Amino acid sequence: MAETLKFIQFGMGPIGEKIVRYLLERENVELEAAVDIDPAKIGQDVGELLNLGKPLGVKVSGNAEQALANSDADVVVLSTLSSFAKLEEQIRLCIKYKKNIISSCEEMAYPWDEDYQLAKSLDESAKQAGVTILSNGVNPGFAMDTLPIFLTSVCQRVDSIRVERHQNAALRRLPFQQKIGAGLSLDEFKEKVDAKIIRHVGFTESVQMIAKAMGWQLDRIEDIVTPAIAERDLESQFLKVAKGDAAGVLQTATGYMDGKPVITIELQAYLGHPAPKDSVRIEGEPPIYSEVKGGFNGDIATCAMVANSVPVVRRAEAGLKTMIDVGLTSWFKGHNQEVAESEQLAAV
Amino acid sequence: MAETLKFIQFGMGPIGEKIVRYLLERENVELEAAVDIDPAKIGQDVGELLNLGKPLGVKVSGNAEQALANSDADVVVLSTLSSFAKLEEQIRLCIKYKKNIISSCEEMAYPWDEDYQLAKSLDESAKQAGVTILSNGVNPGFAMDTLPIFLTSVCQRVDSIRVERHQNAALRRLPFQQKIGAGLSLDEFKEKVDAKIIRHVGFTESVQMIAKAMGWQLDRIEDIVTPAIAERDLESQFLKVAKGDAAGVLQTATGYMDGKPVITIELQAYLGHPAPKDSVRIEGEPPIYSEVKGGFNGDIATCAMVANSVPVVRRAEAGLKTMIDVGLTSWFKGHNQEVAESEQLAAV
Repeated sequence: MAETLKFIQFGMGPIGEKIVRYLLERENVELEAAVDIDPAKIGQDVGELLNLGKPLGVKVSGNAEQALANSDADVVVLSTLSSFAKLEEQIRLCIKYKKNIISSCEEMAYPWDEDYQLAKSLDESAKQAGVTILSNGVNPGFAMDTLPIFLTSVCQRVDSIRVERHQNAALRRLPFQQKIGAGLSLDEFKEKVDAKIIRHVGFTESVQMIAKAMGWQLDRIEDIVTPAIAERDLESQFLKVAKGDAAGVLQTATGYMDGKPVITIELQAYLGHPAPKDSVRIEGEPPIYSEVKGGFNGDIATCAMVANSVPVVRRAEAGLKTMIDVGLTSWFKGHNQEVAESEQLAAV
Repeated sequence: MAETLKFIQFGMGPIGEKIVRYLLERENVELEAAVDIDPAKIGQDVGELLNLGKPLGVKVSGNAEQALANSDADVVVLSTLSSFAKLEEQIRLCIKYKKNIISSCEEMAYPWDEDYQLAKSLDESAKQAGVTILSNGVNPGFAMDTLPIFLTSVCQRVDSIRVERHQNAALRRLPFQQKIGAGLSLDEFKEKVDAKIIRHVGFTESVQMIAKAMGWQLDRIEDIVTPAIAERDLESQFLKVAKGDAAGVLQTATGYMDGKPVITIELQAYLGHPAPKDSVRIEGEPPIYSEVKGGFNGDIATCAMVANSVPVVRRAEAGLKTMIDVGLTSWFKGHNQEVAESEQLAAV
C-alpha cells in the first residue's frame, strides 16, 4: 500500500496557492495544513479557495504555531517573504517543530555571503533539529545559477559565464507587468528603482552561488537596473506604454574577479521582446552555448521548482542548504517511489 | 595555507590520462598514485607519460593493492572497465582501503535495475566503510539523463522526454570513428552489432535513471542499433566510406509505460552529420526544448565530468550513489574552496 507524503503550506498568496495545486496533482501527496495571515482566507477550505471542485477538509489557519504543533507532516513549503532576515522568525518556528523547509525566499537561495551570521545560526539550529532548509525558484534557484553551474560539469576549464533571461512581458500576468515598471515614465521608473521597488531580488545571490561553485573569489558585484525604453507605442492585454516610456526592465548583475567580469547574468523583461529565451554561454574549454527558446515559463517555473523540491529536501542532509549541496531536483509523478523501493528491498 | 586534495588514478588508458591532466590543471590538486596493468606504462613517471614537461615523482604502479595501502588520498578515480560486474573486484579493493570512488564505468552510472544484487551489496559495503561510490561521464551521467532530469524541475507536469545527441564523427578521433562502425559494409556492421561490439554502453541505464527520477514504472526498454548509411562517398582525416556503407551509428533506446513511449534517447553519430547538437524535448506543462548547438564535446566532456566530480564524491553521503543522489557537480578552480570556508568560520 502506498504511503502518503503530507506537507504544510505556509503562505497562501499566488505562489503558495499554485504550489499547493501542483503538489496535489501528484499521486499520494496530501496537504495537511495551510497557514496565512490574510483574514479573507483564514477559515476557508483550501479546496474551495483553489476551486478544486470539492472541499479538501483543510481550512486556512491564521495560527502558524498551532498548525505546526498539530501536524505529523515533516515538510513545510514556506512562501511568504523575499527577505531572509524577515523570514527568520518563521523559519525558527518550523525548526522548533522539526519540519524540513522548502522555501521560495529569493535571498535564502544563497544567503552565505550577504548574511553569513544568520545563515550560520540557522544552519546550526537546523542541524541540531535534524531538518533541512532549502530555498529556490526559477530565479534564483535554477535558470540563472544552478543550471549554468551544472552545465560547467562537462568543461575542462571555465573562464567566464554569461546567462541571459529574455522575456516578453506581454505574455505575463498584470502584476508581473507592473512589477517590471511597464507603462511608467522614465522619471517614475527611476524613483521606483531608487526605492528598490523595481528590482528582481536574488541577482547578487545568483552571482555569489556561481562564484562559490567555481571557486572564484570575486572582487565585487554590480547589480544595475535600467528601463527598457519603448521604441514605439505598445500595448498588452492589461496596459499601454507610450513611445519613450518604460516598456519593462533591464537588470544585469556582474561579478568581477581580478578586475575582469567573469559572471554576468542579464534579465531583459519588457512588453514586445522579440526573442524570449533562457541562455547560458560558458567561455572556456570547450565553450558551451545552451538555449531554451521561448525561455522557461516564469509563472509556472518558480512554483514547479519549489513543489518539485519537496522530496529532495526531505531526504537531504540536515542544515541550511543551497541547490549546490542537495541531490538533483526533478519533476516527480508522486510519492510511490519510496514505497516501490522498499517493496523491491523486501523482495530481495 | 591551502590544503592539498590528493587522488589516486586507477586506470591510465586514454580516459584516465586525460582525467589526470584535467585534475592537475586545478589549484592544490595532487596525484598521489597511478595504477595500470599495461607493462609498457608500469614504472614510467606520470609527468613524462603525459608530456607534462617535467616528472611528477609518481610512477605508474602495476600493484593496485600496494598503491592503495600506501596512500593517504581519500579518493580514487577509477577508469578501467565499462562492465559493472567485472569492476566489482577493483571496487571492493578501493572500499577495503576506505577510498571514495568516482568512476567512468557506464553500467555503474545507474546499476540499480540491471544488477540490483551487486548494487545493493556494494552499497552496503560502502556504507560500512563510510565511502561514496559514483559513476558518470557525458553519457551516461550527464547529457542523456541527468541534464534532462534536472530540466524537468521547472515543469508542473511531464508526459514524455526525448533526448537527441547528434554528432559529426568526422571531427572525432580515429578510435571513435572505428567504434561507431564508420567504413564498414552493412554486413560487417550487422555482425559487430550482433556481437555487441558496436553499441554505446549505458543507454538502458540512462532510460532507467530518468524513469527512476520521474517515478515512472516502465513496461520495457528497447535499445536498437542500426547503421547510418552513407548517401555518398565520404572521407574523414582517418578513413573513407563508400556510398551505401556505414557512415556511423544510429542508436535509440526507448522506455515504454502503459504501452506508450515516454522516454526516448537517440544517438546519431556518423561522418558528415550536418547538424550536431545535444537537445532535450520535454512534453508536458510547460513543454521545454533545450539545445546545445554543436553538442557537448565528447572527447573532453566525459573526462571533465569525472574530474569535476571528485569534490562531490568526497563530500557526499556514504553508499553507492547515482547522479540523482549527490550534490550538483560543476567545474571547479581548485581545492581552495574548503580552506576559504574554514577561514571564514574561524573569522566569525
